[in-house]
Parts: sequence; C-alpha cells; structure tokens
Amino acid sequence: MNILELAKNRKTVRKFSKDIPPIEDIKYAINIAKEAPSGKNDQPWLFILITNKEEKVKIREICEKGEKAFYKNSKGRLKEWLDKMSFSWEKDFLSEAPYLLFVFSNSKSPFSKESVWISIGYLLLALEEKGLSTVTYTPSNYNEISRFINPPENYKLEVILPIGYSIDNKHKYARKDLEDILIIR
Amino acid sequence: MNILELAKNRKTVRKFSKDIPPIEDIKYAINIAKEAPSGKNDQPWLFILITNKEEKVKIREICEKGEKAFYKNSKGRLKEWLDKMSFSWEKDFLSEAPYLLFVFSNSKSPFSKESVWISIGYLLLALEEKGLSTVTYTPSNYNEISRFINPPENYKLEVILPIGYSIDNKHKYARKDLEDILIIR
Repeated sequence: MNILELAKNRKTVRKFSKDIPPIEDIKYAINIAKEAPSGKNDQPWLFILITNKEEKVKIREICEKGEKAFYKNSKGRLKEWLDKMSFSWEKDFLSEAPYLLFVFSNSKSPFSKESVWISIGYLLLALEEKGLSTVTYTPSNYNEISRFINPPENYKLEVILPIGYSIDNKHKYARKDLEDILIIR
Repeated sequence: MNILELAKNRKTVRKFSKDIPPIEDIKYAINIAKEAPSGKNDQPWLFILITNKEEKVKIREICEKGEKAFYKNSKGRLKEWLDKMSFSWEKDFLSEAPYLLFVFSNSKSPFSKESVWISIGYLLLALEEKGLSTVTYTPSNYNEISRFINPPENYKLEVILPIGYSIDNKHKYARKDLEDILIIR
C-alpha cells in the first residue's frame, strides 16, 4: 500500500477489540517514529508504554475526573460540537485498549513540540500499516496524569495514544478539498 | 517500500538540484498531509506553495536578515553546535530549491500546532516516497517573513519547506536506540 492509501484509510478510533496485538508491532511503529527529524537532532521524544491492566484503570479514573470538569465547563460552539459528536467524559478506551502509549517531549530541546508531533505523524501511519488503530487523546488534566506516570524531569506530556485493533464503526470524517488548503503562486 | 524503509531513508536535505520536480508530486504529498487527524477535525492547515523565482529570492533576503541577527546573538552550547555543524546565516536553499512550501496553522483551532505538525510528519514521508527532499526550516524572523507571504487572518507560520531533488551528500544523523526512548511497563 502506498502512503496515500494508508493516510486515506487511517481514521481515529475510540473502540478497541480485546485482542492483544503483538508488542513487536508497537515497537515497529516507534522505530519509525524515532526516525523523524528534530531540532538540533535532539530527538526529544520519550515513549512510555503501559500494558498493565490495573495501571490503565487508574489512568482512566484520573483522566475521567479531568474530563468531568471539562465537560461541565464547556459551552458555546465547543459544547454544541461535543454534543453533536456524542462525546462525553467517559473514556472507555483508556482501560479497554490493550496498550496506552504516553508520548513526552523534552522541554529543554529546541522545537521539542514540533519535533515530537512530526514523530507522532510517522507513528500514526506506521500503526495503520500494521493494522492498528488509535486516537490522539489529549487529557484535560495533563499535569495530574503526567505526575501519575512520573516521567524524567523536563519531560512534558504531549498525548496519550490508546492502541489496539479497531471495532469502531464510525466512518472517517471528511477532509477538505485540496483547493481549499493549497494556494500556488 | 514499507514505512520503516521510507522513514530510515528520509534525511534532512539543504542542497537541491536545479531540476524541477513535477508539481503533481507536491500535490500528492499535500493530499496525504490533509488526511492527518486534527483537533475538532478543523483541519487547521494552510499550504502556500511558492514557485516564482523572484519571490524566492526576496524570501531568502528577508530570512537571511533574520539569520544574521540570530547568528550574531547565539552563544554557548548553541553557538558551539552551529559551528560544529558548519551552519551559517546563509540559506541558499531558499532561492535554489525549486519549491518553497509555507505551512500555516489556524490559531483559532484547538490543538492547531499539534495537528499541523502531524500533517507535516505525513508530508515528509510522502515526499520521500516520491524521491523528494526537504528541510523543516524555521526562520528566525517568523513575523517578518509571514507578513511578506501575507496569509489569511489568524494563520500562523509554522515552517518553510524548501522542496526538490537532493544533491546533499551529508549523511543522516544517527538516531538513539529504541531502548533509550521507550519504557515498557
């Protein structure tokens, strides 16, 4: 499959099968992610992979606490959109996905956020190539969940990626046409 | 080629052949970039592709003015690294690459920076698949060069990607081992 097909097939998934993918497939994807370019070649990414069921349950508990507050406070267009999408504070995928991959950036490195999100782009396509799915879940209470994971000093949580096989029937949301996002001159 | 091979082969390139790649290959890569996920599916990316020689020369002039100030002010470990890498304020690639792709993010969208840099990750692999090279060039004087390009309101410059065929003999910088960036628990 070429990258266009992979990118087009790839969609965000929030419901995962209980089947556990080989950990080698996750390592394959991270081996790809670490080939990304980075500011000063600092490679400011750190991946922490949670496989332990009790830890996942605890993570879900902490994140849902943050989500409850977020949903309670959301209003206006954001609230309308959340309702339209039938999103709620419940994040089943945090305990149900076989893997939770925490991605951190070293805040002491130049362009650490930019670099790490390039590597996440690589990772998403690599997971798709292995038939794996994920959602780029950004918790409402970063600091609290980051303290629980306890990364090395200066490492900032960027995203949590629940990973597994999709059982999510939601279709991929449509993308804009090329003409709407590209100006040539 | 699978994505691991693409990602491993892909390196940052700062010297470009004068041969002009088909614009269809650039469009192919942007068609892939726009499949990236984004906050609220806002698709906050905007790509402005500069093909005009005079405009590229002017862009180089503006950027080099910023680079001169940056190099003059750099010191300590950063200065040492710049010297070691033989980097200077001169950015030939800005006028010599056949294409300059400016990537902007809509600052009104949630997680706009994160989303756009995922799409840049997609784009880098897509360019590699087409045999094209680039460098994620982040100018020192964002505001000045952005004013020159004059994107729609609220669009923030993230990166300039000079694109073309590589004639750069520099090897790819080594990456850390998987064990150094992945913790499993």
